[in-house]
Amino acid sequence: MNWYMIFYTVGTLLKVEAALMLLPTAVSLFYGESPAAFLLTIAALLAVGQGMAWRKPRNTAIYAREGFLIVGLSWTLMSIFGAMPFVISGEIPRFVDAFFETVSGYTTTGASILTNVEALSQGMLFWRSFTHWVGGMGVLVFVLAVLPKSEAQTLYIMKAEVPGPTCGKLVARVRQTALILYGIYLAMMVILIVLLVLGGMPLFDSMLHAFGTAGTGGFGIKSTSIAYYNSAYVDYVIGIFTMLFGVNFNLYYYLLLGDIVSVYKSEELRWYVGIIAIAVGLIAMNILPQYGSFLNSLRYAFFQVSSIITTTGYTTADYSLWPSFSQTILVMLMFIGAMAGSTGGGVKVSRVVVLVKNAYRELCAMRSPRSVRSLKFEGKQLDKPTISGIQAFFTAYVVLFCLSILVLSLDRHDHVSNLTAVAACINNIGPALGICGPMGSYAPFSDLSKLMLSFDMLAGRLEIFPMLMLFAPSTYRKH
Amino acid sequence: MNWYMIFYTVGTLLKVEAALMLLPTAVSLFYGESPAAFLLTIAALLAVGQGMAWRKPRNTAIYAREGFLIVGLSWTLMSIFGAMPFVISGEIPRFVDAFFETVSGYTTTGASILTNVEALSQGMLFWRSFTHWVGGMGVLVFVLAVLPKSEAQTLYIMKAEVPGPTCGKLVARVRQTALILYGIYLAMMVILIVLLVLGGMPLFDSMLHAFGTAGTGGFGIKSTSIAYYNSAYVDYVIGIFTMLFGVNFNLYYYLLLGDIVSVYKSEELRWYVGIIAIAVGLIAMNILPQYGSFLNSLRYAFFQVSSIITTTGYTTADYSLWPSFSQTILVMLMFIGAMAGSTGGGVKVSRVVVLVKNAYRELCAMRSPRSVRSLKFEGKQLDKPTISGIQAFFTAYVVLFCLSILVLSLDRHDHVSNLTAVAACINNIGPALGICGPMGSYAPFSDLSKLMLSFDMLAGRLEIFPMLMLFAPSTYRKH
Repeated sequence: MNWYMIFYTVGTLLKVEAALMLLPTAVSLFYGESPAAFLLTIAALLAVGQGMAWRKPRNTAIYAREGFLIVGLSWTLMSIFGAMPFVISGEIPRFVDAFFETVSGYTTTGASILTNVEALSQGMLFWRSFTHWVGGMGVLVFVLAVLPKSEAQTLYIMKAEVPGPTCGKLVARVRQTALILYGIYLAMMVILIVLLVLGGMPLFDSMLHAFGTAGTGGFGIKSTSIAYYNSAYVDYVIGIFTMLFGVNFNLYYYLLLGDIVSVYKSEELRWYVGIIAIAVGLIAMNILPQYGSFLNSLRYAFFQVSSIITTTGYTTADYSLWPSFSQTILVMLMFIGAMAGSTGGGVKVSRVVVLVKNAYRELCAMRSPRSVRSLKFEGKQLDKPTISGIQAFFTAYVVLFCLSILVLSLDRHDHVSNLTAVAACINNIGPALGICGPMGSYAPFSDLSKLMLSFDMLAGRLEIFPMLMLFAPSTYRKH
Repeated sequence: MNWYMIFYTVGTLLKVEAALMLLPTAVSLFYGESPAAFLLTIAALLAVGQGMAWRKPRNTAIYAREGFLIVGLSWTLMSIFGAMPFVISGEIPRFVDAFFETVSGYTTTGASILTNVEALSQGMLFWRSFTHWVGGMGVLVFVLAVLPKSEAQTLYIMKAEVPGPTCGKLVARVRQTALILYGIYLAMMVILIVLLVLGGMPLFDSMLHAFGTAGTGGFGIKSTSIAYYNSAYVDYVIGIFTMLFGVNFNLYYYLLLGDIVSVYKSEELRWYVGIIAIAVGLIAMNILPQYGSFLNSLRYAFFQVSSIITTTGYTTADYSLWPSFSQTILVMLMFIGAMAGSTGGGVKVSRVVVLVKNAYRELCAMRSPRSVRSLKFEGKQLDKPTISGIQAFFTAYVVLFCLSILVLSLDRHDHVSNLTAVAACINNIGPALGICGPMGSYAPFSDLSKLMLSFDMLAGRLEIFPMLMLFAPSTYRKH
């Protein structure tokens, strides 16, 4: 294990976090609030970061094991330090609560332990929403510059097998792509801010909501989330943008290159749009009696479907008052999640499609054992390791899901709250049903449950395995 | 598609059902009740069965496709005819209800739409519980004489590839094994009846409970299920026997042959016993405050764990009043289910173990891509088709599970009732939580939901694929 390189990378990241924290410091100063909490944290980050990344190690070779550890450790440490301003300022006095809130921010979940979000200072509100943006960006930079696509192993396998110059070239190209995607991410966010300001939303609110939308996070800055603005324009702008941020960013890259055919041919995009259309249709009809006009029920159905499937979590309606059928659809969308390569969470549309296609292929194979079919996705034949990896992910996901519910059930809340709280955290959505519904919060859970849910948020964001490795003793064993 | 052979086999099975119905007819006569409903059904069964199985087809070759259709059709038709006595006698006047109850019986689920089971006549009570025994037996005969073990495809693949004399020999040997296992099944049931009668339970009650225990069905004949007898002896006898009927019957065969080493070495058995021990321990501690003494809470915890993991569904306590933690454990046991090759349902311990082991192997492969590990179960290396089949099963299972919940949610009952009702039916358990908890019934569900749950029970019992094929249009397409 190359511990030097692990420390160096994580330490560098902590220094980056210190730099990012200059922004909320500025906001605090702008609004005449004390920036002390941020400055103290920045000092701590610099001290620890510098201590860990004192000098570049001579041996920079890292392999899969180191890569996973770096990812798991970085996100955990960034969340611990990110929680400090809340604790120091006393605005979220208990550390477990502040840690939960920060993990929720970085992982772009948007689950909150706050019962009165409007009581936070402007600086803290900004920092809280800004973590969404960093987390969303982080995923792009990490996933595409460090781990190409969501298949973390790909690059590490290459690195493990080709630790020479080829690897350096590859990283450079991946980084270049990442920068382009990051540019798209930034541009789309700026357009969203402009559109929201044009719709009459204050600049501060527009920026914070754009952070939450771009990162598919969903931290509201009002107790009633987006419903506060009571504007069909705002609903549709945010609803459409959440949907856009749930799309694989590679498709925007293709679009920039003028390659419309690739976008049109994207199988995952078709499934994504199809699932959204069907869900919106079913829910709009189901909630029609509650909203009177079809246009109204369409507006609320579209916003909620877009917000949930992209795992954002903004709300314009208290869907806990909708019929069970609509609620059930929403809970299922939580699991499906957004497209791979987007800032959204969940199992991801592509994984769901591959799993179902594979099951159908097995059904055909059982029926006619002599006919051999291959499994195609996005026009290409999928190889066995990819399918096997997806299925292993799904199993690990289900096992973690069950264990988390078991831990939460120690709190003696109702089953629906436990089940949907885990679903909302592991899929990085935010609001659930029951006590942590759109009008509730995660405050009633015990510390143990909050830590479990924090782990779930991180595991969900990092696609399970890095977090499992971080806590598996066998990772640290010599081989 | 060899339709002649399909009709012939299904027709023969219906004639067997007619023969089986002579028993409840005798019970009706013994208790001085009218046997008219049974006699009419027998006449109908013979007429239809004889019409379908008029003469043995010249071409007896069947392949995978035919095999699955035979299994799916047989169970559906046997349930339709099995429901007739309830409807004709007017004791369960609505067909959908009677069908649900019969499917629940044959699939050894034990879910009931009856709100007052004690109002049934002795003949109907006998028939209702007897379907459990037939279903439990049927699974053994079917699964081991027609489909070896749970891997339905194995034999059909062999048949498809070797349609000559080799196949006949193979079937003969499988049938012989099945007869031995069936002997064990019968002997264990007789021992159970004797033990229950010795414990002071009336012979009629003992027989009916033995049917439900042997088939891991769980239809009670009292509204309070086994709690009615209020006897620690009865609780422990039934509790231990449900656990024994959840064991792979092959192990009893080995035991008969004196091959204790094979039993001792069974990996699945160790997991099964281990899971039971842990669940009993955790629940016993969790419910201790409710029951005062540890011995008491151990008694109720052991009975319920054994009843649920084997997917039987008898109850000695209203576990809906237990803490969420215990309930959550019970719901998880519903999914794990009994051992493969037993009369119990669920995903099966072996599948769960293989899925988890495979996920762990992938985790190791990601961490150290160069170390290749093989997946071992029961001391043998698992081949890729087996793993792939298990994973496809799991996906199909999850998809069916979600769709069923969606259908049930149209009824506007609470989420816990919907979710656990589907879990209790697809895993062939019976009682769930909420409206269909140990003291409730499935009566409040709509006809659509009852049909959906009936499909789930059949799909669960037949391991998903035969029922999916029955309803997949592509099955009937020429190839």
